[in-house]
Amino acid sequence: MTKVKVESNIYSLLNPGSVVLVSAGDGEREGVFAVSWNMPVRKDPPMVAFESSQGHFTYQFVRKTGEFGINIPEAKMVNQVLGCGKVSGKTGVDKFAKFELGRRQAEKIKAPLVETAFANLECRVSQIVDMGASALVIGQVVAAVADDQHFQNGQLVFDNGLELLHHLGGNRFCVSDRVIIGE
Amino acid sequence: MTKVKVESNIYSLLNPGSVVLVSAGDGEREGVFAVSWNMPVRKDPPMVAFESSQGHFTYQFVRKTGEFGINIPEAKMVNQVLGCGKVSGKTGVDKFAKFELGRRQAEKIKAPLVETAFANLECRVSQIVDMGASALVIGQVVAAVADDQHFQNGQLVFDNGLELLHHLGGNRFCVSDRVIIGE
Repeated sequence: MTKVKVESNIYSLLNPGSVVLVSAGDGEREGVFAVSWNMPVRKDPPMVAFESSQGHFTYQFVRKTGEFGINIPEAKMVNQVLGCGKVSGKTGVDKFAKFELGRRQAEKIKAPLVETAFANLECRVSQIVDMGASALVIGQVVAAVADDQHFQNGQLVFDNGLELLHHLGGNRFCVSDRVIIGE
Repeated sequence: MTKVKVESNIYSLLNPGSVVLVSAGDGEREGVFAVSWNMPVRKDPPMVAFESSQGHFTYQFVRKTGEFGINIPEAKMVNQVLGCGKVSGKTGVDKFAKFELGRRQAEKIKAPLVETAFANLECRVSQIVDMGASALVIGQVVAAVADDQHFQNGQLVFDNGLELLHHLGGNRFCVSDRVIIGE
């Protein structure tokens, strides 16, 4: 997998609504968890939003550092995604090691990124909307890379076997793998 | 299509991140537009969020009435979805008629719903986050129905031909139509 910088149309990586892994760390500790509830909220500058329980182990680092990574898995990572969603970092487990996520150094933030994901977005928190037990995190994307087989000319392409993973609930996911063009 | 009331797991209708049609009206005028940027934000009570340009014709009714419908189309409605995204209600066109969306009476809100969509969620605005040119609308779902062929026992099922439509950008969409189970 060769990842290249994405400098425009970053929103289109998240547009189809697939599940992502959110990663964050404070330099000493770090975590990664699965987030189904995410969406772009602006094209330029690119901004994203996701919903997290306030109690999530990894969320504390988002709040503390103001930085997070969004890592987009292909469908073949389904068990890793599910594992990251089920296992809490509070147990002390290193999810990067346990689920063989691969660690990628970010360019502009300190949070770790997931190398095995086909796309990585580096984000800085703009605003957090308190939703009670959960928080709606809004952030600006400050850097992004994607696999050059699956993202070309500013758009996701499915000709090279890309399968996106959309969470249905529990351990069920649906998969998108083909394009249709509207008229 | 026979729609039945959905009283639990409403979030799971939006979980996979497909494109929706948002409908709203003030009793005299009404509108419907395509929204890619949507997600659940709470399971119980069920809450949703979507992003809209402040300039959208239909958005003014969301703001004015505090009510909106979320209508989830199957992939076969791709041209209707695209049409609803391209044509502005400001032109005076009746998109319900032009795109043969079918009109469904809501149970608890006054906004019109799209009968040809396989699921309809009735929502009341809880909060609007001003994002400058756009607005992040957060609402509570107060009623929901779904096609009993595609939503069973609190979950989306794909055995009866359900194909969900995920927006990639422009007139391109990807389709999810099969389930995988993680371990």
